[in-house]
Amino acid sequence: MSPSWIDLNCDMGESFGAYRIGMDERLMPYITSANIACGFHAGDAAVMRRTVRACKANHVAIGAHPGLPDLNGFGRREMRITPDEAYEMVIYQIGALMGFVRSEDAVLRHVKPHGALYNMAAADSALAEAIAEAVYRVDPGLILFGLAGSELTKAGIRRGLLVAEEAFADRTYRADGTLTPRSEANAVLQDSVEAAEQALLIVRDGLAWTGDGGTISIAADTVCIHGDSPHALEFAIAIKQRLEQEGVVVSAPNLKPFSNR
Amino acid sequence: MSPSWIDLNCDMGESFGAYRIGMDERLMPYITSANIACGFHAGDAAVMRRTVRACKANHVAIGAHPGLPDLNGFGRREMRITPDEAYEMVIYQIGALMGFVRSEDAVLRHVKPHGALYNMAAADSALAEAIAEAVYRVDPGLILFGLAGSELTKAGIRRGLLVAEEAFADRTYRADGTLTPRSEANAVLQDSVEAAEQALLIVRDGLAWTGDGGTISIAADTVCIHGDSPHALEFAIAIKQRLEQEGVVVSAPNLKPFSNR
Amino acid sequence: MSPSWIDLNCDMGESFGAYRIGMDERLMPYITSANIACGFHAGDAAVMRRTVRACKANHVAIGAHPGLPDLNGFGRREMRITPDEAYEMVIYQIGALMGFVRSEDAVLRHVKPHGALYNMAAADSALAEAIAEAVYRVDPGLILFGLAGSELTKAGIRRGLLVAEEAFADRTYRADGTLTPRSEANAVLQDSVEAAEQALLIVRDGLAWTGDGGTISIAADTVCIHGDSPHALEFAIAIKQRLEQEGVVVSAPNLKPFSNR
Amino acid sequence: MSPSWIDLNCDMGESFGAYRIGMDERLMPYITSANIACGFHAGDAAVMRRTVRACKANHVAIGAHPGLPDLNGFGRREMRITPDEAYEMVIYQIGALMGFVRSEDAVLRHVKPHGALYNMAAADSALAEAIAEAVYRVDPGLILFGLAGSELTKAGIRRGLLVAEEAFADRTYRADGTLTPRSEANAVLQDSVEAAEQALLIVRDGLAWTGDGGTISIAADTVCIHGDSPHALEFAIAIKQRLEQEGVVVSAPNLKPFSNR
Repeated sequence: MSPSWIDLNCDMGESFGAYRIGMDERLMPYITSANIACGFHAGDAAVMRRTVRACKANHVAIGAHPGLPDLNGFGRREMRITPDEAYEMVIYQIGALMGFVRSEDAVLRHVKPHGALYNMAAADSALAEAIAEAVYRVDPGLILFGLAGSELTKAGIRRGLLVAEEAFADRTYRADGTLTPRSEANAVLQDSVEAAEQALLIVRDGLAWTGDGGTISIAADTVCIHGDSPHALEFAIAIKQRLEQEGVVVSAPNLKPFSNR
Repeated sequence: MSPSWIDLNCDMGESFGAYRIGMDERLMPYITSANIACGFHAGDAAVMRRTVRACKANHVAIGAHPGLPDLNGFGRREMRITPDEAYEMVIYQIGALMGFVRSEDAVLRHVKPHGALYNMAAADSALAEAIAEAVYRVDPGLILFGLAGSELTKAGIRRGLLVAEEAFADRTYRADGTLTPRSEANAVLQDSVEAAEQALLIVRDGLAWTGDGGTISIAADTVCIHGDSPHALEFAIAIKQRLEQEGVVVSAPNLKPFSNR
Repeated sequence: MSPSWIDLNCDMGESFGAYRIGMDERLMPYITSANIACGFHAGDAAVMRRTVRACKANHVAIGAHPGLPDLNGFGRREMRITPDEAYEMVIYQIGALMGFVRSEDAVLRHVKPHGALYNMAAADSALAEAIAEAVYRVDPGLILFGLAGSELTKAGIRRGLLVAEEAFADRTYRADGTLTPRSEANAVLQDSVEAAEQALLIVRDGLAWTGDGGTISIAADTVCIHGDSPHALEFAIAIKQRLEQEGVVVSAPNLKPFSNR
Repeated sequence: MSPSWIDLNCDMGESFGAYRIGMDERLMPYITSANIACGFHAGDAAVMRRTVRACKANHVAIGAHPGLPDLNGFGRREMRITPDEAYEMVIYQIGALMGFVRSEDAVLRHVKPHGALYNMAAADSALAEAIAEAVYRVDPGLILFGLAGSELTKAGIRRGLLVAEEAFADRTYRADGTLTPRSEANAVLQDSVEAAEQALLIVRDGLAWTGDGGTISIAADTVCIHGDSPHALEFAIAIKQRLEQEGVVVSAPNLKPFSNR
């Protein structure tokens, strides 16, 4: 049996000016794709530059992480934007990051919307199509990251983009494939060993846990590592080590076969 | 005698959200290069998108017009930024515009800093070098626009960039080649016929007027048309017509020999 | 029969930096209450200062017009904010305006939320209560303006605030008292004579038109004059003149009996 | 001999959205005046609210800490603003904080400009006068904090404000009374015992150290405790304990005789 493949992605570059958030440098060795904030919900030009450099030095694939224009709310508050507005803010932010990618002789690999924009695009096909169109028109070779089975990845596939279906190692799912809301019991796995176990389940068996202990089918190309919890590093290490111990190849999605092909 | 060449450039895309400024659509036919605001001192993603489209439709060369992060002050208030900060904010803004240039299948031709950033870079060689480096590293084929004879164009030439030396048809100069400050008498030519006359003088004879009626030598590749005065359109028409009547070829700088080569 | 009373209010101070919007100076003589933008959706410190001065000079009652933190969207895009966030952003903005009211020896009379915040508060009782609480805690003597019969004015009354129920002279209504959406036919009265007619109908008879030519009951203390349409001045003049010709006293709400008492 | 008095002030409320900075809660017991960021260089409405509450609970005097509109630069980059712009941005920010002071039934005691605005106002009498005028017009009872002997405190005294002359326990001075620039040796006292020693020297003897081990005369009403260094808490404790051990009364300036009276 041939080995399984998976990408481990993490949000990066979310500091801003004098404000520091995350532990980018320490997490870099344990991830394969970085989603870099582009200055709307987090990040600034200086942070973007140094994050692109750090990704290059650590051989981590570089992605844009465009968000809503809401620094104060960290891009987590839904805004009623039009598809045109979504299209435009995604192009602006990918472009801004591309400036640093070019100036550092690096390569831009993927785009993953952030926070409320990610969630809105998962459920709203018009927003999803606008975002997929934006990504395609800036560079049709970019990979679109989105919630596995969501409107966003569907729109990306329809547009002809490579799409990375994303799963969450430390979250449980509902029967319909959406995440168990954080307000419910068992929504978040608190233990790094459990999260690593689910990561392996996702990769090897195409299954993820539901809140009541059952499983659902899931086809994932990339697993999200949360970088903003106090235990982020512990989880990242546990997940990567467990996967590699079991023979899973952990690498950025541009090097692996996609589930949608 | 072979005909002279000149580029006519104008700031464009300075509207923001519900706010409208300028008369971009009406000025387009009379200019050959547009400096498009990139969202820091003016402009937003929607405005950038439609300005790129309008430039493409009007065969106007597209340039980035990066400014200081000061929307409230329209980028006209000097800020004490480091060369690194200048480098980073210029890369971010060029990149953002490049996103729209790519998504519209257009071409980015040049970069002209805006307002206080332009003035600071004209006098401060460290800032000038940082800006030239930023432009070069995003795309060494971009043309850098700066005040004729300034630290900015010198830095661009040293870096190996094509540089367009810029003159102002409606402003007078001091003996040292800097602009007569607006606070002094005769700083601004109020009459479009006079401005057109000086444009011709600049292009054909390499001379510009001083405030006291004399002339200085100037080597210009591009003449700035101010877009934000009530008489902008009248001046643009007068300048373009006068130049063409006298056999001057008015075209974007990528098509002409540069004074600095 | 004693004369009827009404307040005519208008959004003011929505310029920002180099950007001009509205025709504040020309509308001032025809209104009795100004809702001054506070820097979140529009307005800035310089504009707030000069608008407070203009209101004082024109004997127009001064009100705060707090909006969502979305300058690019002019506060018109709904954001999913919590009641705490609404409470905090309203206090911040009222306070900021109060700074100018104090420095100009003027008096702050009322608060009217702007755009999406106004609409959200009209329908969502938790947001409405948070806003009413914010107004009350900054100054219990402030009058809260809100859509007639909405959750916002109900929350204000419950909190013990004076409340000005607001009607729109140039809009038609649905049977439930909400405004006919702009996407439907007959939502907006295009003719200033008609709008003046409806203003009189509202004040004298407590009735407003529905889109299909019927009427509904409405109890209004203040009528909104839109300041951002090209015909704003014409409408303002027509409405004020018509009302005064019919003996209606047009004055700010602090001088009149309220419908809710 | 009667006991000496001193105020210990500290910048507070500089977090923003998801970003945390400082250790406000832990420092509160060791200071007597808090300078609360007002949303321009740092802070937001939620942070302002909770910082006002914390000050009230800890019996710490509440002050506004207005800064330049430069969140990305934390208000530390000088901007060439006009006196009118300084006046307006200070009124706006004091007002915004006053909103929370009112809503929490607290009292606003003082105003201390932040960062580059503080430094610019120390040296530029026109900016200093504009800021003093702003403070006076919002509330003539507010105390203006500024660098001891600077243009700012002189302007405050001329305007008729109570003024708190500020000294720095952990910085050395030049012969002219300005701070030794951080770029020079001995600019910063690295040891908390030394800083406490200088605090006592300032209060009891009216002297501060120069970089070369000499002393200059200084008349201070308040000593600044830096809150953003890793050793902030250690310094704050050392300074307060040392002063109190020596019989110095540590209290907010509204309760003590001022050096300028």
